[in-house]
Order: sequence, then structure tokens, then C-alpha cells
Amino acid sequence: MNIREITVTPVAFRDPPLLNAAGVHEPWALRTIVEVVTDEGLSGLGETYGDLAHLEKVRTAAKALIGLDVHAQNEIYSRVAALVGDVVSDLHGLTGAATKEKSVDRVYSPFEVACLDIRGKALGRPVSDLLGGAVREAVPYSAYLFYKWAGHPGEADDRFGAALDPEGIVAQARLLIEEYGFRSIKLKGGVFEPSQEVDAILALREAFPSHPLRLDPNAVWSVETSLEVARALEGTLEYLEDPTAGIEDMAAVAARAPMPLATNMCVVTFEHLPPAIRQGAIGVLLSDHHYWGGLERSVQLARLCETFGISLSMHSNSHLGISLAAMTHLAAAVPNVATACDTHTPWQDGQDVVAPGALRFVDGAVPVPKGPGLGVELDRDALAVMHEQYLTCGFTARDDTSYMRRFNPSFTNTRPRW
Amino acid sequence: MNIREITVTPVAFRDPPLLNAAGVHEPWALRTIVEVVTDEGLSGLGETYGDLAHLEKVRTAAKALIGLDVHAQNEIYSRVAALVGDVVSDLHGLTGAATKEKSVDRVYSPFEVACLDIRGKALGRPVSDLLGGAVREAVPYSAYLFYKWAGHPGEADDRFGAALDPEGIVAQARLLIEEYGFRSIKLKGGVFEPSQEVDAILALREAFPSHPLRLDPNAVWSVETSLEVARALEGTLEYLEDPTAGIEDMAAVAARAPMPLATNMCVVTFEHLPPAIRQGAIGVLLSDHHYWGGLERSVQLARLCETFGISLSMHSNSHLGISLAAMTHLAAAVPNVATACDTHTPWQDGQDVVAPGALRFVDGAVPVPKGPGLGVELDRDALAVMHEQYLTCGFTARDDTSYMRRFNPSFTNTRPRW
Ligand SMILES: [Mg+2]
Ligand SMILES: [Mg+2]
Repeated sequence: MNIREITVTPVAFRDPPLLNAAGVHEPWALRTIVEVVTDEGLSGLGETYGDLAHLEKVRTAAKALIGLDVHAQNEIYSRVAALVGDVVSDLHGLTGAATKEKSVDRVYSPFEVACLDIRGKALGRPVSDLLGGAVREAVPYSAYLFYKWAGHPGEADDRFGAALDPEGIVAQARLLIEEYGFRSIKLKGGVFEPSQEVDAILALREAFPSHPLRLDPNAVWSVETSLEVARALEGTLEYLEDPTAGIEDMAAVAARAPMPLATNMCVVTFEHLPPAIRQGAIGVLLSDHHYWGGLERSVQLARLCETFGISLSMHSNSHLGISLAAMTHLAAAVPNVATACDTHTPWQDGQDVVAPGALRFVDGAVPVPKGPGLGVELDRDALAVMHEQYLTCGFTARDDTSYMRRFNPSFTNTRPRW
Repeated sequence: MNIREITVTPVAFRDPPLLNAAGVHEPWALRTIVEVVTDEGLSGLGETYGDLAHLEKVRTAAKALIGLDVHAQNEIYSRVAALVGDVVSDLHGLTGAATKEKSVDRVYSPFEVACLDIRGKALGRPVSDLLGGAVREAVPYSAYLFYKWAGHPGEADDRFGAALDPEGIVAQARLLIEEYGFRSIKLKGGVFEPSQEVDAILALREAFPSHPLRLDPNAVWSVETSLEVARALEGTLEYLEDPTAGIEDMAAVAARAPMPLATNMCVVTFEHLPPAIRQGAIGVLLSDHHYWGGLERSVQLARLCETFGISLSMHSNSHLGISLAAMTHLAAAVPNVATACDTHTPWQDGQDVVAPGALRFVDGAVPVPKGPGLGVELDRDALAVMHEQYLTCGFTARDDTSYMRRFNPSFTNTRPRW
């Protein structure tokens, strides 16, 4: 089962003006679709970031992997590592520091997922069966709420409308829960004064008394502010996500906060785990196979977290259906994924490169696709449209901060902001 | 690929009178052979301990796994865990404390290996391909030297002869290296006064100037004695294995010893890793898929060790070819296995339940079997003979201490002895 061909296709899809600590989502979200084909004609899919610097690394890696067997994960990783000479920075700054290891893991990930897709197809088994076997039939996701503008400046309002205060956030939660059935709620914070975001969480608690709630300000608070928020939300939050930046400050908050702290920012590669564990910085790790080096390494990460008593859930950036399928297989096969995972799926609002039908939400959970491999098929017409959008949209890298500054020139990305 | 049938067969094979801290090997070594057959007629092999208490757990587990898919590792593990209600003790006391987790992992292991054997056969791929792919074509093993009597009391001398002093140990090393080509040497110590064992290592260094050397007294020394030996062997040992008992005392030695400490005794399940890492107790983990819950968990363990800067090698008890094949696939697929692995193969001296040809030593290393699955086949005639030996040999559990006391009634197993 040797790799005969790899096609790397950047795509763009419409993204609403979602607000976060770094600024606001641009009108187009970028992703890269990787299709690996073996000499027997089996094909597998992977999905990763679309930023140009990363895309170029993925393209270079793709050429270096021709001829390798889809089982040779160690060798594939070594070849990728040899190519990713320098650090590929995360421009948007919402998934923690860029490191060499993380850069390699990010480039490697879509190839690993595509190889697992192929291996599953060769066996006639779902990818979850290659990861230990599904322990749940469906993977619960959370309603991922964002403060947002009614529409991109100069464009018509989108169907989600504005959410700029607690009432707007509660209305958005009602909409997403009605459409998807979510049973957990996450609010992306770090946008307004912390007291406004506390009020939003309290309003959500009142509107949804039994939904676990989380708040993620992407590390824009000081230790003191983090502790104020933590105390104000005692008994209300399932966990507080990345209130402040860095392992040391997270540990300082964790020592006194009444709820566990979660992260997808201060621990983003294996090398961050020893100091974070030593300092007791985190209670919940939000894993993400896109930057933890694929699905098998994420399973290894899960064992490590279990060993050290760290709870596990899953982080998401804007993504399409290949990623959702991969996340679902992974979360289904990892027994210690303890809480609902994050997904941006509602904001993609039906746009996808995978053919409809394989992925759906039932009561906020995605049933594990039963077909071989990832269980999703490429919609080649949709892929062509999205690739054309990529070529014409004018964006080549995500930059929420610059986009925000076009409308609010005084916006700064300094931390801590509060 | 559902499990239709599981056959559990205890076997016994001749074992020389190898001396160790617990006493002396009895004339018969016990193992349990597990054969899993799927509804398509694919069969897979596993091998584990033969002690009766463990054998009974394996038999009980075997009944509970009928009908499960060979990919459903999480479910298989859960069923085993539900059955292993109490701790199964390690009578021989040479692989550390018995715990609930370790008991479950030990019972689960042969089934996991057998399922991987089947999965490899179904794919037409070696098991190493299911573990990330081989990164080496052959796995180096060490010459595993033992102080020993010339033969079991009342029986003729075996062909290895006596080894009761440094000269005897050097002669044994020459024999094993001539026959197997080993390029590393491990001496099982804890038998004589530490100064005699230091002399044996120094004699080995003189006779084999470029072979890495190790010494393993199975934790019978005090912290002080451990440090005396460590200082006496500064610059001579690749690592010092389990000089003293328990994580705390190992950490006390590690803090002042000039070489890394290795263990297969103070860290024997995932639950031991957090305290051992916190205290800096070990530099090398000697993994063993027989008690770390099989091959995939051993790969996870390897990632954890890499993350925390712990070097990795492999422990062995008396075993047959199914285990050697599994160990070889695992060590081939784990990049951070840094040093030669241990094996008792020379002491089995040709006795085996697997058909000849698949496993051989070239320059002290076992080439990774290339056939599907583990790449070894059961020799049913040999299995029948060894099972008959089990039924007639009169042993049902390993007990080196009682056997030693038959010849030396004053022998005690108290620790520290020196
Ligand atoms: Mg986050
Ligand atoms: Mg040992």
C-alpha cells in the first residue's frame, strides 16, 4: 500500500464575523485538503490549516512521501520532521506558541489522518477501529458561542445576527441548541470587559440550568483578573479555559481557582507537558489532532493525560467535514474524553468538501460514521468551488487582528488586556 | 472479525538453575499460550505467565471475550478489567509490586497480542506495521548472564555449566556471545556479595572492552550499598538496574549515582510514573508488554517516556518464541528504544512452541519477522509435548525462593540483603 500520489488543495469558505481576543474572523476561512492515493487506487483524506506558510510546508512534505507505505508512520513523521526546518508561526495566536515540534506535528497530521483513512478502507473498518475501537456510538459536541457582529462590514447581515451582550449570547445559544441539540455550551470570551462575559455566563446559566458551561478568553486576562472571574463563576463553570497566558501564570490561577483550568494554548506539544504537570497548571487538556501530530499521537496523549490525572476534551478551529469525521473517530475511541468536544461546524453552516449524509448531529452529538476509513467522501464539485474561492478571495493567511484593525484602528492584541 | 474461540494452553519447558535475588529457577518454567480464532478462521497467538492464579484469570477472561471484534481493544480491556477483581500477586517478586492495574494489564496482554497477530494476518502485514512501522530491520538483544549452578541438584550438569564467580561469568558470556553474537551484556546480580558482582562486571569489561554492560541485583541492596556499587562501577555500566527497592530509595540513589538507573520493578504500571517522574527515580524504563497491557499500550508508554526524557529498553522473563516475536515487533516500531533489549531466549536453548525458522539471531539481533502478523506459527506437536510436560512436571507457579530453600534452608528473601 504505497503512496502513489498526493493532492494538496487549499480551499476557502465563508466565515461569519466571530469575535475573539485576537480580533475578528475574516470573511473567508482557509483550509487545506490532502488526498493521498495508493498504488492500488485507495484514497484517503486529511484536512489542515490553510495559511500559506503552512500550506507550502504541506506541499513540500507531500512530494517527499511518494512511495512510502501508508503504515510507515514513523518514517513518514521522520521525513516531515526533516523538511520542516524552521518554525511555522501561528499568525492568529489562538493556539499557543509556535514551536519546532508543533510545526512538524501540524504538517504531519493531515497525512497521518489520510493514511488511517486508507488503512480503514483497506480493512473495511472505521478509523475508530484502528484507534482502539469506539467506546461510544456518538460524540457529544458543545454549542460554541461567539460574540459576533451582525454581518461583515459592508455586507448583508448573516442569519445568525449580532451577539454583543448577554442577551445576544443567550439568543445565539437558543438558535444553536435548537438546530443541533447541543447539551454543553462554550462561550468564546476575551472580547469584552470580563464582567460583561461573567454576566453572559450567568445569563446562560439562567436560560440553560442543566447545560455544562465553559468560558475561553484566550489568555487575555492577568492572573488577578482570572481569579476574579473564577471566583465570580464558582459553581457555574465546568472549566475555565486559558484565562491567562503561559504555564506559570496558569499554575498560579489553578492553585486558587475553584474550578479546573483547561488549555489548548499553554500546552500544545508533548514538550509542554512536563513543566505543566510539574507546576499543576491544568486540569483539562483540550487536545487537537491538527497540532498534536494526528490521531494515533492523540491517543498516546490521552494515555499520558489519564496517567497524570488530567481530564481530556477537544479543541477546534474553523474546519470542514474531514476534520469533524477525524475528531469524531478519535473522541469515540478514547475512553477518557470526559466532556463535550468543541467544533466550529455550525459556523460553517452547511458549506463542506465532504458529500452530505455521513455526518449529522443528533442531540448535539455526531454519530460515529460507520463506513470504512473516516466514512466521508470528497464532494469534488464542492471542492472545486471552494478551491476557486481560495484563488479569488484574496486571503492567504488568517489574520484576525489586521482585519479588526480595518474597522477599529486602535485595536491591540497586547496581553494581558484585562 | 469476531472472536469465535480462544484456546488457553499452559506449557512447561526445561529451565536451568539460574540464580537471582529471589532464589533459583526451578527445573521447569511455565508459560501460557493463548490462541484466538475469528469467525473467518484467522488465528492469532499470545503468550503470558504460567502461574496458576494468573492462568485461571486468563481462562476466565477468554470466555468473556467470545464474540468481540479483534479491533475492539477498549472493550476487550474493559471486560478483562471487570473480571480481574482482585490483585494477582507475582510470587517470584522480581517484577515489582502487584497492583490491580498491573493484574489487569497482565491478563489483557496475551489477548491484545493475539488480536494484533490476527489483524496483521488479515492485512497481510507484520505487527510492527500496526505499531507505527519498523524503524529498524533487526532488534538488538543483550547477552543475559546469570550466576548458575552446573545443573539442577540430582540431575546431570547442563551444557552451560556452573557460573559462580567472575571467571564463570566471563566464560558464560563468551559462550552466549559466540552462539548469538550479542553486543551488549547484562548480568543478573543480587546473588553474591556486591563486591563479587562488581568484580564480575570488571572482569567482563576486561574481556569485552566495547560491550555495553549492565547489572541488575533486583533491588536487594540498601541505598548505601547501591551507591558504593555505583561509584565502584563509574564509567563501566551503561545503566544500573533496580539496585534498591521502591521509588523513593531509587530516587535517593539516582540523585548521587554516576550512571542512569533503570527499572522493571519500581515502575511497573502507568500509575507509578507520576511519582517516579516527580522524584527523578529513573533514567531508563525497561518496558515489558506482558505486564504493561500489550503492544499498543507499550507504544503509548514509549511516547510518555520520550516526553519526560526517560530512555527506553525492554525487560524479559523466561519466555518462548511468541513473546520474542512480539517483543521484536514492538522494539522495531518504537524509535526511542535506545539500548539492546533483554531476552531469556538462550536459556530456553531451542525449546519452543513456534515452528523453527521465523526467529533467529544475527549479531545479537533478531531480524523483524516479515510474515503477516507476528510472523510465527504454532508448532502443534511441540505445544502438545510442552503441555504434557506442564501436566506432569508438578509445578503450577514459579517459586524460586522455596526451590532454593530445599537446598539451602537458611536462604531468605529479605530486603535489603546487603
Ligand atoms: Mg481555547
Ligand atoms: Mg530487572
